[in-house]
Amino acid sequence: MKATINKKGHFSAAHRLYNNHWDYQKNIEIFGKCAYLNYHGHNYEYITSITGEIDIETGFVFSLQKLKNILHEEIEELFDHKNINLDIKEFYSINPTMENIVIFMWNKINQRISSYLDLKITLYETKNNFVEYDGKS
Amino acid sequence: MKATINKKGHFSAAHRLYNNHWDYQKNIEIFGKCAYLNYHGHNYEYITSITGEIDIETGFVFSLQKLKNILHEEIEELFDHKNINLDIKEFYSINPTMENIVIFMWNKINQRISSYLDLKITLYETKNNFVEYDGKS
Amino acid sequence: MKATINKKGHFSAAHRLYNNHWDYQKNIEIFGKCAYLNYHGHNYEYITSITGEIDIETGFVFSLQKLKNILHEEIEELFDHKNINLDIKEFYSINPTMENIVIFMWNKINQRISSYLDLKITLYETKNNFVEYDGKS
Amino acid sequence: MKATINKKGHFSAAHRLYNNHWDYQKNIEIFGKCAYLNYHGHNYEYITSITGEIDIETGFVFSLQKLKNILHEEIEELFDHKNINLDIKEFYSINPTMENIVIFMWNKINQRISSYLDLKITLYETKNNFVEYDGKS
Amino acid sequence: MKATINKKGHFSAAHRLYNNHWDYQKNIEIFGKCAYLNYHGHNYEYITSITGEIDIETGFVFSLQKLKNILHEEIEELFDHKNINLDIKEFYSINPTMENIVIFMWNKINQRISSYLDLKITLYETKNNFVEYDGKS
Amino acid sequence: MKATINKKGHFSAAHRLYNNHWDYQKNIEIFGKCAYLNYHGHNYEYITSITGEIDIETGFVFSLQKLKNILHEEIEELFDHKNINLDIKEFYSINPTMENIVIFMWNKINQRISSYLDLKITLYETKNNFVEYDGKS
Repeated sequence: MKATINKKGHFSAAHRLYNNHWDYQKNIEIFGKCAYLNYHGHNYEYITSITGEIDIETGFVFSLQKLKNILHEEIEELFDHKNINLDIKEFYSINPTMENIVIFMWNKINQRISSYLDLKITLYETKNNFVEYDGKS
Repeated sequence: MKATINKKGHFSAAHRLYNNHWDYQKNIEIFGKCAYLNYHGHNYEYITSITGEIDIETGFVFSLQKLKNILHEEIEELFDHKNINLDIKEFYSINPTMENIVIFMWNKINQRISSYLDLKITLYETKNNFVEYDGKS
Repeated sequence: MKATINKKGHFSAAHRLYNNHWDYQKNIEIFGKCAYLNYHGHNYEYITSITGEIDIETGFVFSLQKLKNILHEEIEELFDHKNINLDIKEFYSINPTMENIVIFMWNKINQRISSYLDLKITLYETKNNFVEYDGKS
Repeated sequence: MKATINKKGHFSAAHRLYNNHWDYQKNIEIFGKCAYLNYHGHNYEYITSITGEIDIETGFVFSLQKLKNILHEEIEELFDHKNINLDIKEFYSINPTMENIVIFMWNKINQRISSYLDLKITLYETKNNFVEYDGKS
Repeated sequence: MKATINKKGHFSAAHRLYNNHWDYQKNIEIFGKCAYLNYHGHNYEYITSITGEIDIETGFVFSLQKLKNILHEEIEELFDHKNINLDIKEFYSINPTMENIVIFMWNKINQRISSYLDLKITLYETKNNFVEYDGKS
Repeated sequence: MKATINKKGHFSAAHRLYNNHWDYQKNIEIFGKCAYLNYHGHNYEYITSITGEIDIETGFVFSLQKLKNILHEEIEELFDHKNINLDIKEFYSINPTMENIVIFMWNKINQRISSYLDLKITLYETKNNFVEYDGKS
């Protein structure tokens, strides 16, 4: 039988939205206050959802302790108390919208788990705005 | 690549549940306290979920600023601080259960977005009771 | 030793803000959308806080089971799924602002507990707007 | 038209994670603090999600009042203020992980609703760890 | 200038309410389901509030990093994934009501901070039931 | 009769903790990850609490609509989507700890309300860390 286990995590980071091919005026028009020069920031929260068979011996789809370690190594060390535009090289040229961040996180975590498992990541930028990505299309 | 962006909104409204073809006694039996004559109300919360391709230039599935404007025009102006039974003509004859309200909201929002996008609405009547509708069946 | 025990409760009700001595125009000017004629509503939440000595035999300041019964009788039966302006006679002439509601609730509950105990009520009209009253001034 | 209605519930229970075929050392290695001998506990929260056609007369997929009664009889009477390992005979030999508990709950609730309805249960062990099961694989 | 800094923490534990001088029947009458023999449990959350002068060099009333370490040593190591009645000797004879637990926690933390600082602890047994203690009476 | 009305607000901002009189090594030692060079950020939430007499004509301690406008002008325009260290001149030389930010906010809001009213501000840097200031000592 298959079930989906979910674990919430969080990190605090700075970012700004910006398309380097546009001038400042165009960026403000499209991204509003999110394009301000000196960065702003968020308490990001994210949910890692893993779907797979329940192991008979442990009763687990995936050990939450192992998952905690993976998330610490792949996500929190990279993102927590960082500036996403300046500190993570993949975002030097990619705009750190929540859509682009969630795909980056999905790729980081997906390479650490078995291909028999389905992965979905949900990323909250604020309590009211969030994004989901499951690598399926 | 496709992702799903989500935005929470809210409105405060009064309503009562009532089937005009039944007498008061039958309405109380089926709807309990929700059928009381003088209306009660809720702080409704709703999540608008839009699934689609991520635009390369913006990094957005859909601009949250544009979505905010659509939700203001289509939902909040109609529902906020209103009596759903008395102030919204579609509910003169339709019982404003959360199921019927969410379908009405889905139709209002869906006509404002591209047909390439998938829409789901989640409507919370209270913290404990909520409904989802995605227009698929 | 004294401690403060707290219990959350909730009710859903309709209301409108209105001063009967003013015309509609003046009411809209002062109360905005809250003065609309057909009522709106909220999921009210409230916290009952009781401060007193801890009883040695039970380890309780006040039995939460007894408090639950008092709140059911004094608050929920009166307010839940009601229209505050129309269904509660004290609000025929008093404007049901959260300030006036919380004082009414405080008086209802305070008459049911010992005078050796201090009472405070916190009432949430929405997640963002709330009021506190402790009967002290 | 189909929609999904959801209702949250909760119970407080004690449990420990343990595989009877392993010694204590192995259990601690796999389950960490969750294997401690004297049990620990949680405020479990769960969401019951039912998908089906909306009834034209009531505007309901499923009466939330009826669902409340089913959940009281099938879940809360069994789990609330209990020790899952000691008080529920099915867990004498099954490890009460959140995965195994959610499947047990799904079976209890599914036998009480029509086969035309789809059921999903989401079970929160803490705010950060939760599991979903829909009986589909 | 004085301010109050607050830090939330949490632990999961089992307990039961019981007065050893009473028989089982009397305990059930007073404590209801909380007196059941095999224990139940909670995800306890607590807020540590420290009031004092703001240090000019750091801008801190108290370092949250130091506070985190104190809470880990004094509270989480003792309570997390434990049975309060069986694993903490002070509760062999004291009934682990939230009132008695919060006073015990306050004493543990208060001995680790300067006497120039005021301490208050708020302990949540569930989302709806919580207790506050400030050592002042 | 006096009551306390409370309104929640929020802003997203970047900051870093830093004492300009110390070298980087000392700053990291005292402030940990909060001292990283490129800034991080938070979804700050704050509660404005105003205590005063209830006006008989309106039933208000203070109009929440007026308060909303004050908070927009004094707080959100200054802080939202800004870098506190770089964009707010008072923090060029003051370390933007939550203690120092809350006092700055209190002064901004207090100058806009009557001296007959008592003001308290609660500022959340994250869900787990928050500070309170009431101007009283």
